Amino acid sequence: MANISELGEFGLIKHLTEDIEPQNASTLKGVGDDCAVLAPEAGMRTLVTTDLLMEGVHFNLTYVPMRYLGYKAIMVNLSDVYAMNAMPRQVTVSLALSKRFSIEDMDELYAGMRQACQEHHVDIVGGDTTSSLTGLAISITAIGEAPDENIVYRNGARETDLICVSGNLGAAYMGLQLLERERIVFEHQVEEARRTGNRQELAQLEQAQPDWAGHEYILEKQLKPEARRDVILALAEAGLRPTSMMDISDGLSSELLHICTQSHVGCCIYEERIPLDYQTATMAEELNMNVTTCALNGGEDYELLFTVPLADHDRVSQLQDVHIIGHITKESLGCNLITRDGQEFELKAQGWNPLK
Amino acid sequence: MANISELGEFGLIKHLTEDIEPQNASTLKGVGDDCAVLAPEAGMRTLVTTDLLMEGVHFNLTYVPMRYLGYKAIMVNLSDVYAMNAMPRQVTVSLALSKRFSIEDMDELYAGMRQACQEHHVDIVGGDTTSSLTGLAISITAIGEAPDENIVYRNGARETDLICVSGNLGAAYMGLQLLERERIVFEHQVEEARRTGNRQELAQLEQAQPDWAGHEYILEKQLKPEARRDVILALAEAGLRPTSMMDISDGLSSELLHICTQSHVGCCIYEERIPLDYQTATMAEELNMNVTTCALNGGEDYELLFTVPLADHDRVSQLQDVHIIGHITKESLGCNLITRDGQEFELKAQGWNPLK
Repeated sequence: MANISELGEFGLIKHLTEDIEPQNASTLKGVGDDCAVLAPEAGMRTLVTTDLLMEGVHFNLTYVPMRYLGYKAIMVNLSDVYAMNAMPRQVTVSLALSKRFSIEDMDELYAGMRQACQEHHVDIVGGDTTSSLTGLAISITAIGEAPDENIVYRNGARETDLICVSGNLGAAYMGLQLLERERIVFEHQVEEARRTGNRQELAQLEQAQPDWAGHEYILEKQLKPEARRDVILALAEAGLRPTSMMDISDGLSSELLHICTQSHVGCCIYEERIPLDYQTATMAEELNMNVTTCALNGGEDYELLFTVPLADHDRVSQLQDVHIIGHITKESLGCNLITRDGQEFELKAQGWNPLK
Repeated sequence: MANISELGEFGLIKHLTEDIEPQNASTLKGVGDDCAVLAPEAGMRTLVTTDLLMEGVHFNLTYVPMRYLGYKAIMVNLSDVYAMNAMPRQVTVSLALSKRFSIEDMDELYAGMRQACQEHHVDIVGGDTTSSLTGLAISITAIGEAPDENIVYRNGARETDLICVSGNLGAAYMGLQLLERERIVFEHQVEEARRTGNRQELAQLEQAQPDWAGHEYILEKQLKPEARRDVILALAEAGLRPTSMMDISDGLSSELLHICTQSHVGCCIYEERIPLDYQTATMAEELNMNVTTCALNGGEDYELLFTVPLADHDRVSQLQDVHIIGHITKESLGCNLITRDGQEFELKAQGWNPLK
């Protein structure tokens, strides 16, 4: 197979995209011209979100397989579209790659992206492929649509609204902690084997796979998160329209504070109501971390956080995999967590700061 | 002023975007939620294009001021929208920056972006700000609109159509050559002064500015290119709809071959018709380069290349700053350049390959 520099920019784009068939009627023209051309349905709004992922900052290729990286890169953008109560339709994908990447690497990355797109009925309609001096950069823009009356912003939460989250929290963060721990152990073992000149051990280490038994769920939440299309569809089927909504990418605390700030309200959530997976709890214990802190500040959950009017209590209670964790209060009461033993703490955004 | 890591991701986005007021009625919601929300006009198509610019590959900050970089980064995307005969309306801007950048740098970059957007009536509606281990990455997505019947693709050129270009070619490439030459001279002088311990000379060098007299135009074409909105408006006013169109970012040869391949036609262009600026010609001579080669393969012109039916000859001739350089032929005749002395050469794409 040709190497990337021989293929050139257009050759690589062609190689990666030539058999992509648009799935959406609104995709009139995909890859191959100066722009993609889309036909929004009459009366629909167009939603746009974008993310730039940098190697060494957002992902570590020592433990993230290319295919999963591609899948996740798409998923995190689709999650932003669902978080507006809209349906994603198209994405553009730009890549900058250094010389160490092969066409096979790009094929794997694209395979993951295409799988994510297929599962969510989204078309890859364009992008850019170029080189980078160091590492891999991935920039994705997702485009979605929704009727105006369906779109849910962050600023619509009202006093007495119920606060809901889908799935469970903190699992992706625990998955990351586990991967980081194993990476450090592994690197230490390799260093030791090199120092002592133990070639047999080095060879064994090269083949070695950590034992992930009992941690599959938290690893999957970290490596292959799912944008919650199912929750958006379930809300629509139940005739429920949230008053505010976000996806949880930087941690529950941080997102809840965004909703409260933009809606000019306060909130009260209950520690005992925060949904946790068993694997998240055991991993936190193993690492001597407070599991509630992980759930509040962990990030990368890509679950949905939303509010509904109190009158919708019964209907929202019947939704699968959706949990009521508290309620909206007056702005003057602030944003608080009630612990299991009844104490009140002010919520703080300790979410991930990629600029630190 | 706070430093970037203290400001954090949300703080930086807020700082850069808080006083941006949407200019387009179709921009319902800009920065500040999971997605931007746009209202396409009834019956309009949405056009999307994206570019990823990497420091050290697409730009060199030793001679590109941040403000110009921002301006150009926006312009190259708008140029792609105009190249479809459409009007740009919104952009998203994602930045990844390493620790060496200050808030003042970002202010300058954004000032250039905002100036470009203002001049073209475009709204900045979203983006992402994150860190990078090395250098600066800029990813921009531009969104435009046009009625279906106006959109011009690359595949519509027909035999006997006239081939036209706006402005003149090769100037941006000559500007780049000049900047590179001065950079090398400067670095050499600094090295010498360091080697000989000549502090006085070092201090002088730090203050020194190369003498750009007589080269202003080619420098401006390289550093601050203008997307040809004026040509798109002039075409509309003249009632002209090109049969095919592209913007010239990788060089005339490369773009013409794209149009011919996608339209299944050949072409014939005349060396003597290729528009050149005087500064481009003198710089090429100074550097001992063939000016036609520079015009054919230089790249970064951001001029428009388009074809119109032969019947439009008179109307297109009257357009300001538009030049007829040849005509479309049968596919079997290939793509050719007729030189000043009447020889025929096959056109080859020697455009810039960012993956080499």
